[in-house]
Amino acid sequence: MSAAAPDLSRFAVNQITTRDWTLAQAVDGYARAGVAGIGAWVQYVDDAGIAAASRMIRDAGLFVPCLCTTAWVNLTDPVVYRAALDENRRRLDMAAELGARTLVVVPGGLAAGERDLASARARVADALGELLPHARSAGIALGLEPLHPMYAADRSCLSTFAHCLSLCETLGEGTGIVADVYHSWWDPDFVSGLERAGPDRILTFHLCDWLVPTRDLYQDRGMVGDGIIDIAGYRAVLDRIGYDGPFEIEIFSKLDWWLRDGHETTRIAVERCAPFVGARARAKAA
Amino acid sequence: MSAAAPDLSRFAVNQITTRDWTLAQAVDGYARAGVAGIGAWVQYVDDAGIAAASRMIRDAGLFVPCLCTTAWVNLTDPVVYRAALDENRRRLDMAAELGARTLVVVPGGLAAGERDLASARARVADALGELLPHARSAGIALGLEPLHPMYAADRSCLSTFAHCLSLCETLGEGTGIVADVYHSWWDPDFVSGLERAGPDRILTFHLCDWLVPTRDLYQDRGMVGDGIIDIAGYRAVLDRIGYDGPFEIEIFSKLDWWLRDGHETTRIAVERCAPFVGARARAKAA
Repeated sequence: MSAAAPDLSRFAVNQITTRDWTLAQAVDGYARAGVAGIGAWVQYVDDAGIAAASRMIRDAGLFVPCLCTTAWVNLTDPVVYRAALDENRRRLDMAAELGARTLVVVPGGLAAGERDLASARARVADALGELLPHARSAGIALGLEPLHPMYAADRSCLSTFAHCLSLCETLGEGTGIVADVYHSWWDPDFVSGLERAGPDRILTFHLCDWLVPTRDLYQDRGMVGDGIIDIAGYRAVLDRIGYDGPFEIEIFSKLDWWLRDGHETTRIAVERCAPFVGARARAKAA
Repeated sequence: MSAAAPDLSRFAVNQITTRDWTLAQAVDGYARAGVAGIGAWVQYVDDAGIAAASRMIRDAGLFVPCLCTTAWVNLTDPVVYRAALDENRRRLDMAAELGARTLVVVPGGLAAGERDLASARARVADALGELLPHARSAGIALGLEPLHPMYAADRSCLSTFAHCLSLCETLGEGTGIVADVYHSWWDPDFVSGLERAGPDRILTFHLCDWLVPTRDLYQDRGMVGDGIIDIAGYRAVLDRIGYDGPFEIEIFSKLDWWLRDGHETTRIAVERCAPFVGARARAKAA
C-alpha cells in the first residue's frame, strides 16, 4: 500500500456526509474518489426509487454497509406505533433490495410527554423483538447503534455500548452493533464493549471526530483528524479482536462540511480516513 | 407541610444559578426566599474574601452543601500539574472554612493535544489520591461528580456514575458522589448507581432539567419542570435508599435564567423544587 494508492476496499462514505447530493450524485462522487461503499439513507433511496437506487449502486460496484435508519418508535398511541413498525418492515425490505448488511436502529427517545426513560427503553426492546422475524427473513441485521447520551431525550434512548450489547444478547441472531466513535468515544466501556461484541457482532464502524468546542448538539460533528478522538487507538482494538468489516465516515455538519461541495468533502474524507481504513493494519498483516 | 410553607430545610440554591449576583447578594436573596443552603463557588468566595464569606453565610444561617469546584488537573506539564494540586489544597481549606460538606471534583477532560482518554482518567485518579490526605485532614470529602459525556473532552472525563463509584471505592474514606440529574438522567446505571452508593456516599443531589431542544452544550440547562427529567422518580429512589442529604438546584442558563433578576430566578426555583425537596416524602413519613 502506497500513499498514492490508499486501500479503500473496506471504506464507505455515509451519504449524509454529503447531505446536499442526491443518491445518484453520491454514488458517482464516491466511486470517482475510489471509495468502495456507500452508507445509504432511506429518504435519498425513496427519492430515487428503490429499483433505480439498487441499480445505480450495483452498477457502480459499491457495497452498502448499512441503510439509515429505522423509523422512530417512541410512540404511545398503539395505532401510530404499529404503523411505525410497518414502516420499519418496509425499510428492512429496502435494505435487502439494496444489498445492505444492516438497517441502523435509531428508535427515538422519550415519547411526547413521557419522562420514564426505562419505559422508553423497554418499548424499544419490544419493538425490536417484533421486527426481528421480518429482519431474519429479509436477511438484514437490526444494527443497534449506541447514540451519544445528549440525544437520549429526542433521537435515541440507546445510549451506551453495554446497553446495546445486552439487547443484542437478549434478542439473539439477526441483531448486531453499529459502532460509532462519535457516539461512544467517551464511554468507559467502549473498548471492553468492542471486545465483548467480537468481530461478528460489529456490523459497521463509523468514523467521525469530536470537535472542541462543539457548537451544536446535532450538526457540528468533525472531520476525522479535526477533533480529539483516538481513532488510531480504536483501529488497533478492532484489529486485535479480528474485526474485518466496513469503515464508514459519517458527518453531520451544518456549520462546515455540508456547506462545501460534495467532491471536496469526499476528497478530504478519503485523505483523512485512508490511514485508518486499510484492509489490515500493517503490523497485523506481517 | 402546606403549599403556603414549603419545607426547604434540605434545599439549597447553587449560586451559579444566579450567576450575576455577588456572594453577598446570593446569601441575602436565598435567605429571604426561605432557602436553607447555598452551594458556593470559589470565585465568588475569593471576590468576597474567605473570612467575610464565611461570616456572611454563617450569619444568614445557611448550610453549605458543597464548594464548586476543584481546579482542573488535565495538565501534562508536571510543574503546572503540581500547582493545580496546590490550588486544590487551598480550595479544600476554603471548603473547610466555609463549613462545606464537600469540594466538587470537576477535573477537566483531555490535556492539550491529548487523545488518550484512559490516560486522562488515570491522571485524575492519581490526582485524587494525592489530594486525599489533605482532604481527610481538612474534613472535606472529595465529591466526584459524574458530568454529562458531552463534557468529556473539555470539562470532566468523569462521565458515568459507575466510573465515579468505582473510583470512590478504590480511594475509600473521604470521597463520595455529587449526583446531578442533568448529568446522569440518561445513564442506564443511574438508579442502580444511587442504590450502590447508598445514602452516606451521596454527598449532595443537584436538581436541574434537560430541555428539548437543548440549544447550547454548556449553558442551556433547564429550570426544574421545564424539561423531561423524571425528578419525582429519582426522589422516590433516594427515599427508598434512605438518603437524607441536601437537594440543590444548579442551572447554567445564558439563554434564559441568567438573563433574569436573581430574585425572580430564586423565587421560581423554590416554587418548582418545593414538591421534590421536603425533608421526607409524605408516603415514607407516614
